[in-house]
Amino acid sequence: MLIVMEAGARPEQIEAVVRHIEKMGLKAHPIPGAQRTAIGVTGRQGAKDPGIVENFPGVKEVIQVSHSYKLVSREAKPDDSVISVGGVDVGGRGIVVVGGPCAVESYDQTRTIAEAIKRAGGQLFRGGAYKPRTSPYSFQGLGEQGLEILARVREEFDLPIVTEAIDEESLNLVDQYADCIQIGARNMQNFSLLKRAGKARKPVLLKRGMSATLEELLLSAEYIMSEGNYNVIFCERGVRTFSDHTRNTVDLSIVPAIKRISHLPILVDPSHGTGKRNKVLPMSRASIAVGADGVLVEVHHKPEEALSDGPQAILPSTFADLVQQVDAIAGVLGRSIVPTLSRA
Amino acid sequence: MLIVMEAGARPEQIEAVVRHIEKMGLKAHPIPGAQRTAIGVTGRQGAKDPGIVENFPGVKEVIQVSHSYKLVSREAKPDDSVISVGGVDVGGRGIVVVGGPCAVESYDQTRTIAEAIKRAGGQLFRGGAYKPRTSPYSFQGLGEQGLEILARVREEFDLPIVTEAIDEESLNLVDQYADCIQIGARNMQNFSLLKRAGKARKPVLLKRGMSATLEELLLSAEYIMSEGNYNVIFCERGVRTFSDHTRNTVDLSIVPAIKRISHLPILVDPSHGTGKRNKVLPMSRASIAVGADGVLVEVHHKPEEALSDGPQAILPSTFADLVQQVDAIAGVLGRSIVPTLSRA
Amino acid sequence: MLIVMEAGARPEQIEAVVRHIEKMGLKAHPIPGAQRTAIGVTGRQGAKDPGIVENFPGVKEVIQVSHSYKLVSREAKPDDSVISVGGVDVGGRGIVVVGGPCAVESYDQTRTIAEAIKRAGGQLFRGGAYKPRTSPYSFQGLGEQGLEILARVREEFDLPIVTEAIDEESLNLVDQYADCIQIGARNMQNFSLLKRAGKARKPVLLKRGMSATLEELLLSAEYIMSEGNYNVIFCERGVRTFSDHTRNTVDLSIVPAIKRISHLPILVDPSHGTGKRNKVLPMSRASIAVGADGVLVEVHHKPEEALSDGPQAILPSTFADLVQQVDAIAGVLGRSIVPTLSRA
Amino acid sequence: MLIVMEAGARPEQIEAVVRHIEKMGLKAHPIPGAQRTAIGVTGRQGAKDPGIVENFPGVKEVIQVSHSYKLVSREAKPDDSVISVGGVDVGGRGIVVVGGPCAVESYDQTRTIAEAIKRAGGQLFRGGAYKPRTSPYSFQGLGEQGLEILARVREEFDLPIVTEAIDEESLNLVDQYADCIQIGARNMQNFSLLKRAGKARKPVLLKRGMSATLEELLLSAEYIMSEGNYNVIFCERGVRTFSDHTRNTVDLSIVPAIKRISHLPILVDPSHGTGKRNKVLPMSRASIAVGADGVLVEVHHKPEEALSDGPQAILPSTFADLVQQVDAIAGVLGRSIVPTLSRA
Repeated sequence: MLIVMEAGARPEQIEAVVRHIEKMGLKAHPIPGAQRTAIGVTGRQGAKDPGIVENFPGVKEVIQVSHSYKLVSREAKPDDSVISVGGVDVGGRGIVVVGGPCAVESYDQTRTIAEAIKRAGGQLFRGGAYKPRTSPYSFQGLGEQGLEILARVREEFDLPIVTEAIDEESLNLVDQYADCIQIGARNMQNFSLLKRAGKARKPVLLKRGMSATLEELLLSAEYIMSEGNYNVIFCERGVRTFSDHTRNTVDLSIVPAIKRISHLPILVDPSHGTGKRNKVLPMSRASIAVGADGVLVEVHHKPEEALSDGPQAILPSTFADLVQQVDAIAGVLGRSIVPTLSRA
Repeated sequence: MLIVMEAGARPEQIEAVVRHIEKMGLKAHPIPGAQRTAIGVTGRQGAKDPGIVENFPGVKEVIQVSHSYKLVSREAKPDDSVISVGGVDVGGRGIVVVGGPCAVESYDQTRTIAEAIKRAGGQLFRGGAYKPRTSPYSFQGLGEQGLEILARVREEFDLPIVTEAIDEESLNLVDQYADCIQIGARNMQNFSLLKRAGKARKPVLLKRGMSATLEELLLSAEYIMSEGNYNVIFCERGVRTFSDHTRNTVDLSIVPAIKRISHLPILVDPSHGTGKRNKVLPMSRASIAVGADGVLVEVHHKPEEALSDGPQAILPSTFADLVQQVDAIAGVLGRSIVPTLSRA
Repeated sequence: MLIVMEAGARPEQIEAVVRHIEKMGLKAHPIPGAQRTAIGVTGRQGAKDPGIVENFPGVKEVIQVSHSYKLVSREAKPDDSVISVGGVDVGGRGIVVVGGPCAVESYDQTRTIAEAIKRAGGQLFRGGAYKPRTSPYSFQGLGEQGLEILARVREEFDLPIVTEAIDEESLNLVDQYADCIQIGARNMQNFSLLKRAGKARKPVLLKRGMSATLEELLLSAEYIMSEGNYNVIFCERGVRTFSDHTRNTVDLSIVPAIKRISHLPILVDPSHGTGKRNKVLPMSRASIAVGADGVLVEVHHKPEEALSDGPQAILPSTFADLVQQVDAIAGVLGRSIVPTLSRA
Repeated sequence: MLIVMEAGARPEQIEAVVRHIEKMGLKAHPIPGAQRTAIGVTGRQGAKDPGIVENFPGVKEVIQVSHSYKLVSREAKPDDSVISVGGVDVGGRGIVVVGGPCAVESYDQTRTIAEAIKRAGGQLFRGGAYKPRTSPYSFQGLGEQGLEILARVREEFDLPIVTEAIDEESLNLVDQYADCIQIGARNMQNFSLLKRAGKARKPVLLKRGMSATLEELLLSAEYIMSEGNYNVIFCERGVRTFSDHTRNTVDLSIVPAIKRISHLPILVDPSHGTGKRNKVLPMSRASIAVGADGVLVEVHHKPEEALSDGPQAILPSTFADLVQQVDAIAGVLGRSIVPTLSRA
């Protein structure tokens, strides 16, 4: 922490701040400058917040410096983490493409799409059994029946499953049926759910909240890791801004920012990120080009009949193009698509 | 819904859109214009999303018009709702001032602050037993022990209690111990929690999410009401923007916007809204001036020792000034502070 | 400036940073901490940006601390500035209400509205002769003819004039005809125009840019003052956010923030700030309640015929209510409406 | 325009709206729905804004539908525009890489960097002679002397020049000395400057404003084109959001959005977009991958001595890598770097 005093701060005001900091068991380092004094604060911060000195007379500003994340950081683990999702590696030199419908609607729908995903070279299958919907009157997902459909389709196509959990009850079931537990953007700071996910056996795909900073995203992963589950995969899915030509604004620069600070892998979801079918393919290419470990996209064979988010789902044929283009872009970075599982 | 066709759209493209809309059981109304044709869509929308036509050839844009909220709306109930929190009316002509610490830290701390709140004329007491904290390593609240302290203090001072629930387990306990269940900003779209709150017996104080639109806030209240709990109080607590001189940007214009659309009351929380002690009093005055039904503020007698959010807590003496100033502002609008409960 | 080193930074990396800082003529103060070292930097920064060390090996983060504004600051002038606009004081204990149409459309329109403003107790008249419009095909204002109409109306009603300048040419004319030169939000960082305004004889009303931080707003005023014109009045007019129930999001907390740092007065424009006629009156009350020195509102007697921004203009009768309510709110803060000029 | 009536709107209220619309010379098309009536409005809108009906009794909402841009649109010109900047084509199948220092500081500095740009395969040279700086006390550029240096360097290396104009005076000089006139983000809505640029002989590089919507950006280009200069190149340079890990948030999805609506080319500036040297290379790759026609980056051989924006400038060696990687990514899209000019 750095405390900046006002230009006219009196010596006794500076001393009062120093005394208060030291009473908290921290160390204060006054730095007299040409115009004003700044006070550096070091030591391990306890339960009390030293930021309170902002209200002391003569104090101009208090600037937070240190970060609370530890386990997510490269300072804790310098090398890239590679996380296995049902046998498919996420992170490292490979690239993964996760495809599937927004929501599981029926066995036939799910099977048809899964077949297309597999044929095109997608390595993981996504589909929601529990859907967090803005309106209580929208389709909320098939629940456990949806999970059963997903599990059945996995067996048929050797496609590990990523699916969302929205509360403790659904998380328990997802942990049991699926290969990766998705925590959605709206639950990124549902700390009870994060702690529960930290006790799950399966890896967690953690989506960035709609207005989450990089630091908050890292700390939400820290919640999961601090409970013992070290298999966390980040996912950028667009943030909310004034910009209105897409549903959200995809913030691709978070990919190299995460890579610099953390050892965990990161995917991008251009379907929710843009909300527009015609932007999914170009933004998928850009995601791989910027250094993401893969993309997560919505695919539907009859988007005009989809029960949710039809306008952003791409067709199976576009998905096949996407896999090829993404692989070609990966090649420029010396990476390539992770091979799909075979049905040995 | 309104579908806007491109200037050069061909008649058969327009027809294809019309046919698709009608196949969904809706009615299409083409409106030929000077430059382009628009197609109005009416009828009750079913499970399928007609927005899919955005991807049809010749379609320029699809504009959503109708809203999904019903019970929160003045179209459902034209008159203002007045909601009783432990005997104190929220909404109507009265103004409420809710004060208390960010977190319940001990019986002594809680009692000291409650006494000051009561003496100054505050009518409701707030204090967190469950704290959603960004970092897993920060103080997370005393849990049920905190609720017991709150209940004990309520008896001593006749101050009904507002406190936050963060998951199903804590909600059950809050419903039992407190007079009003707070759903925090981070959980505004935790739909499982909202549904559970819809089955609680106590009124719900629903805080606006950090990047929630007016419509999303209304729909979150609709989740609670659609489960049978009609006692919802909104709370504006600042939204996240680029603006960095306060922690969040308080969006006071949502107060008249809510009042126009909904019959439910709305409070403002300038403590979290600004994150700065010296902004709480002026923003409280502004909140009442714009038409809010009350304010919710953090008070601590020793903010430098607070376990959370000390820098934004005001002192009991400032709280006493706040009650008086807020009452004077209310007078200009023909309103006044609701009298506190007496210990009859 | 504060430089935060990585936890594992080696001594020679720290030394390299220190050496570089000192080569720039600045002083480096290493502060060894439990986990990592921070380096405070003091001294007057020259032309070169020391922020470059962010790219040095072992550096985690560089945090800017000092501010570049001087003349706008209370450190330069502790007391509130009171600025005379054609004889009407802005700042100090009084409150001003500035009213008028978005655009000057004709002598009759302007005269009718000015008469209503004067009768209701408004002290200053606003109206655009030069209109910065998003589209080149929208009405762009009457230009110098508009200024002549404004000057004529001023004589008839003793209402000093505030009107916008959009480039050097119009600024020269506005400086000649009007009593206060408005710099609009879109030109807040048109530095050439700011420098020109710094050489004008008349006070300047500087509107906050749509995405300007507090610091940027202060520095834009500094541009004007550094050229010799010390009569600057700030104006909050809403910032651009994701929030869509109003045209912009009025950030009222900037009022106490400005008051704390700067001696210059600040007004609020709730008409552009909300873009909704029905929000102007409540937001005007809130502006005065939070501590603003006045409000600037759009008034039109026939808003349905206005050539620009009709939907946000209030009627003369609402304006009369506004003056009364604003005066009553001011009373709570021990302030009152500045008396209007009389036609002695 | 679409007018949505309230559910309980009475027939005479609907009629009043219809009459008002028709009095304005427009045509009203009432569409009765299950719950409420909507009224479509067609016809060429004149000077008066029909949005005013928002304040009529019984009206719930007014939704704008039509756009004001014409010349920038693919409806006006379906094929991609290819714009020659000093003989280098921007747009079409080629990709351009524009490099150079933030500011021209001296002939030697400029020459050294230009040589590196040319050697690495960059086709255009950038460098500011007029710098819009947030603080009046920062280095403001060398002015005409800087333009002379740029012109001299162009002759030596056959590198056409892109440089910023900040007001009418500098625009006249830039038009004379340079090959492309840059309008910076802060001036995107300086409409007087846009009109002046519309009369210039050279192409214009128009940067997106910090909080500009797609529509506003298009309309700013429309300002230039409506004055007769059809050679406009867009440039995305990041928008301002709450996200704080980069200086701005680069909104890459605007590239396919622009391509869909407009025939004009678009570049991306990842240097200003991120403000971080280590993000420039990955974001350059992403820009080409998403479909941009080129990138604009800051290069400095001694960034630690740069007079402005040193922390975001890349080294000449990184620039050489960038050109190669960008070319490889372009290859995946069937595009390639436009060959540099030779000194024939």
